[in-house]
Amino acid sequence: VAVTIDAEEVDRLELSLEVFRAIYQSDAVKGWGHFGLVVQAYSKRALPVLHYINRLADEQGDEIPLRLVKGAYWDSEIKESQQLGIDGYPVYTRKACTDVAYLACAQFLLSDDTRGRIFPQFATHNAHTVTTILELANHDSRPFEFQRLHGMGEALYDAALERAPKGIYCRIYAPVGAHKDLLPYLVRRLLENGANSSFVHQIVDPDVPVESLCQHPIETLRQQKTFYNKRIPLPKDIYGPKRRNSRGVNLNIRSHYYPLMEKMATFMDKQYPTKPLLAFDVADDSANTHSVTSPFDRRQTVGSVQWTSKEQAAKALDAAWEAFPRWDTTPVAERAAIVRRLGDLMEEHMAELMTLCSREGGKLLTDGVDEIKEAVDFCRYYAMRAEESFGEPIELPGPTGESNRLMMGGKGVFAAISPWNFPVAIFCGQIVAAAVAGNTVLAKPAEQTSIVAHRVIELLYEAGMPRDVVQLLPGDGPTVGSVLTSDPRITGVVFTGGTDTAQIINRALAARDNAPLPTLIAETGGMNAMIVDSTALPEQVVVDVIQSAFQSAGQRCSALRVLYLQEDVADRVIEILKGAMSELRIGDPRDLGTDVGPVIDEDARKGLMEHIEKLKGENRLVAETPMSAEHTQHGTFVPPVAFTIDSIDALSREQFGPVLHIVR
Amino acid sequence: VAVTIDAEEVDRLELSLEVFRAIYQSDAVKGWGHFGLVVQAYSKRALPVLHYINRLADEQGDEIPLRLVKGAYWDSEIKESQQLGIDGYPVYTRKACTDVAYLACAQFLLSDDTRGRIFPQFATHNAHTVTTILELANHDSRPFEFQRLHGMGEALYDAALERAPKGIYCRIYAPVGAHKDLLPYLVRRLLENGANSSFVHQIVDPDVPVESLCQHPIETLRQQKTFYNKRIPLPKDIYGPKRRNSRGVNLNIRSHYYPLMEKMATFMDKQYPTKPLLAFDVADDSANTHSVTSPFDRRQTVGSVQWTSKEQAAKALDAAWEAFPRWDTTPVAERAAIVRRLGDLMEEHMAELMTLCSREGGKLLTDGVDEIKEAVDFCRYYAMRAEESFGEPIELPGPTGESNRLMMGGKGVFAAISPWNFPVAIFCGQIVAAAVAGNTVLAKPAEQTSIVAHRVIELLYEAGMPRDVVQLLPGDGPTVGSVLTSDPRITGVVFTGGTDTAQIINRALAARDNAPLPTLIAETGGMNAMIVDSTALPEQVVVDVIQSAFQSAGQRCSALRVLYLQEDVADRVIEILKGAMSELRIGDPRDLGTDVGPVIDEDARKGLMEHIEKLKGENRLVAETPMSAEHTQHGTFVPPVAFTIDSIDALSREQFGPVLHIVR
Repeated sequence: VAVTIDAEEVDRLELSLEVFRAIYQSDAVKGWGHFGLVVQAYSKRALPVLHYINRLADEQGDEIPLRLVKGAYWDSEIKESQQLGIDGYPVYTRKACTDVAYLACAQFLLSDDTRGRIFPQFATHNAHTVTTILELANHDSRPFEFQRLHGMGEALYDAALERAPKGIYCRIYAPVGAHKDLLPYLVRRLLENGANSSFVHQIVDPDVPVESLCQHPIETLRQQKTFYNKRIPLPKDIYGPKRRNSRGVNLNIRSHYYPLMEKMATFMDKQYPTKPLLAFDVADDSANTHSVTSPFDRRQTVGSVQWTSKEQAAKALDAAWEAFPRWDTTPVAERAAIVRRLGDLMEEHMAELMTLCSREGGKLLTDGVDEIKEAVDFCRYYAMRAEESFGEPIELPGPTGESNRLMMGGKGVFAAISPWNFPVAIFCGQIVAAAVAGNTVLAKPAEQTSIVAHRVIELLYEAGMPRDVVQLLPGDGPTVGSVLTSDPRITGVVFTGGTDTAQIINRALAARDNAPLPTLIAETGGMNAMIVDSTALPEQVVVDVIQSAFQSAGQRCSALRVLYLQEDVADRVIEILKGAMSELRIGDPRDLGTDVGPVIDEDARKGLMEHIEKLKGENRLVAETPMSAEHTQHGTFVPPVAFTIDSIDALSREQFGPVLHIVR
Repeated sequence: VAVTIDAEEVDRLELSLEVFRAIYQSDAVKGWGHFGLVVQAYSKRALPVLHYINRLADEQGDEIPLRLVKGAYWDSEIKESQQLGIDGYPVYTRKACTDVAYLACAQFLLSDDTRGRIFPQFATHNAHTVTTILELANHDSRPFEFQRLHGMGEALYDAALERAPKGIYCRIYAPVGAHKDLLPYLVRRLLENGANSSFVHQIVDPDVPVESLCQHPIETLRQQKTFYNKRIPLPKDIYGPKRRNSRGVNLNIRSHYYPLMEKMATFMDKQYPTKPLLAFDVADDSANTHSVTSPFDRRQTVGSVQWTSKEQAAKALDAAWEAFPRWDTTPVAERAAIVRRLGDLMEEHMAELMTLCSREGGKLLTDGVDEIKEAVDFCRYYAMRAEESFGEPIELPGPTGESNRLMMGGKGVFAAISPWNFPVAIFCGQIVAAAVAGNTVLAKPAEQTSIVAHRVIELLYEAGMPRDVVQLLPGDGPTVGSVLTSDPRITGVVFTGGTDTAQIINRALAARDNAPLPTLIAETGGMNAMIVDSTALPEQVVVDVIQSAFQSAGQRCSALRVLYLQEDVADRVIEILKGAMSELRIGDPRDLGTDVGPVIDEDARKGLMEHIEKLKGENRLVAETPMSAEHTQHGTFVPPVAFTIDSIDALSREQFGPVLHIVR
């Protein structure tokens, strides 16, 4: 029996090729000649991959069976690329292009270049493709095989093989496995064959004329003006003309990853001395300056932050109050343009901002990409919304002939109090939403992530934001926060953080005399549950659980805290979960191989460890990811853990870290 | 020189005829034969009015000069009718109908029926009308005259009179007066003649063919399918098909006024014993029952209110909390239908509700009409909005193929705390908005107006509202209000009232532990200013000032408190204001002749009088409406007063009554 490595999503292609090469060159396989792999013709890299495989075989001498397919993940490839915001698509966006690519690959595979190196295996149920391959092969005596799925294409191959050169056969493959493994495979096949553009689907559709099925894909393509499909917008254009998608990076693709790493390297050791960015100059105050170190290694410093004094905060508020009427009457197009420029600048400075997210906030690289993308999206989204809402007045019905026009404007001075867990995205979103709407803003970043916030505000000023419209007030809650919530001139507070703090802010605002009812937007903690019943695929459940509970070391308000398992599947899910958790790697977040980084600081670590020790003491531990001292001893790390609890009521408050609770 | 009473808006027609008849029959005029009046042909009542005038002349023998015009207030008649929500329009909605009516009236005026009784005066600049009248008159030797405005229609009459019977002439009239009086008159004329449908406008428009100007209005009408203008919706239909306008009453029209008064009379002495309307039965508790008297005469009782105990309030909250999930999942169409039925029921019971507004709340009849109309409008508006927002989920863009649907639902239990100054409208608006959105509601009416609130909730139950969804909790703030603002299950409070109380509610809500951030909608007091410069017509300013400052005895949060006058016009405006204030009648609000009713209670009166006495002591009084003891001694009345103050800063808080402050 031959062994073939299957092809998955295209961003795992490089990994697959690495794995294939390693095994192919290993002693276990060397000299065998039956170790093969699958190549997808819809991938724009299919032909180069074939050349690479051909060279491997050339170097080693063992023939490589190569199964050529069209590819089964087209929808997810498109959607994933759109979500990532990369420049183009890794797959063709017209079916006919894939068909042509398949034939081009087939031609290469049947050519003399690959003779003795690659054994071609054509997996197709498309009559046109089969016929064309036979046509190509008829010129030659090159051995190859067809492949079809058991139960499909029988009649096709019965007819086709009659005219095939002697020795050409069709291998029939069949999925093997227990019912629970087989079902998802069959469902995927059904979806694939059910697609409108599928040959298998079209040949049984009486509305599709036979001629169209016989048309050579090159002919089909010639009838189009473009090779790309115009109805599938590029990832940057998915939000339409009024809003550009943020640009991302696929870290699994080396041509994306390496240039980013190179850029990030230039910021890895940079030291950032920062102080408040206010409407007026701020004198140095070393007594009030705090050094900032990295959560994953407290020996490494990132820079320093000079905190805002009470007097500076009060003076900043005066400036914001004074700037409000001027800013509110600045045309919204101008305000929106500044905010859009910030988005562009953050894209441009993605590498530096990601580096700071890792060094100051302990964020993984993947989290860093998402972080900056979200911030950029906020800028463009709020700029668009502001132009819609604050531009021309909205004409309302005037039933008795009167003129009713709705005009919206800024409300006054907003305090933006942001958390450390999304130090760019939420920080930036709060500020730009408030400012683009015509408000002036006093931004207090989390103490733990003031440096990256400082860098964002520098970019904001570079984008053209007046210094008295948005001011940065690094500092602690009792000093800066109390000014921002006690002054009657504060019109609104936008806050993300703990429920307790929201409560304090709410009461402080309510306690003010002679102040209008303020706007308080508070995004606070919660307790997120996932409920799993026996219809769910346990493997998929665990993938989702790991992602939701342990991504960002569980430091997200959307992280999974309580997993409810139906008794019938609980053992199986927990078993797989244990396996998955044991594979997680904890360590330096700047390493692409790291799955879980540090928690934000020692206070957080202590609180979490107390909770963990308590539950361990109650003998509730289900799994705990092992932590290597080498990678974690100098930082504030907490291992991913899972416990069983009797009920959600056992949790009096949110545990903001990689702690999963299971109720069964 | 003859004297002619001019015609104004049609709802002053009955008044004008009264005035005309009184003077005509007075000794001063009897036997003179030159006392006339103006009749507008666009009024549907024009011909009956001519018959009435003809009979007056027949009885007395003095000929009456009667100036027939087409009418100059068409736009305001239409708009006024739409705002009032009356059944139809008092004027024709096609210009051609008015032209025909003019000719019909002319025919009557030139007939033998009016010979020797009415002297016809045809005021027109329309060539077709002039010609037709000459045609009618040629059959006869009846004397009459034409009238034209000085400077208009010279050529027309020069030509027309050549062919007129001997003795027919055209009187030329000219406005006389000082510049400041004349300007508004000329502007009105300009607007009138500038109208698209005006003959004067059309004859100078080169695009209008001469044939169309020569067409007999009967011919024009025959080309239409309807006599009414389809493009002008009836007053009830001005909001389109999704929302019916509330039905109103024009108290100046006897055919509206008398039937309403008859209905109201049946509720004038009715006694209303009321108690809380809760999800459960409430036992009688005479110790906690308060008698209710009328603000305009404290000797008159309206009924009694049994206040809600703390225990009952807590139990009502339990019921509301329990009812919420059931009500929130009730289809919005069903919720909206109940609210619309309440609107219909309030229209049906308008007379009773208006009576209670007067008897319990001291409201004028005009205020009562507006009050019920507003409440009905709230019902229909919120029902419509709820169906728009809470019906089908709103599909949002799904840029990467995901499905994004926005569904809105109720938030939980709402407390509705309403004021006495709009005891039906605001009370009802708060409740129906919250309830139709899926919330359950605990309604605390103002202590002063619990009886009318009780009647509204009875109607709401009659409309089908479940008793546990909306409950009525009459009582005082410390007892009922505190329960409604301290329980963590209260999701939101909608409040209208004083700023101090809003502050207390806000702090009480913020003080709760383990409660989500509540929704607090607080509509509180303010200090409204009007700024008058020298371009304003002083007479119009004073009309608006009187209305804004003294309507509802100044007990509206939108009432004018501070009038800013440009020095150049201040003396003139104040002089007219003094005159107007001296004419206001204070007394029983149920009397149509009353301009200013009582303030709500003795506490309010005391507070206002203190303020008034203080300013009087500072010698700041400008004007004070005299109050007759006969009409006010048994109630809580405050006379309309005007003071000069140096600046709005002289006022530390809103004075919720008929007190106007002037800054010049």
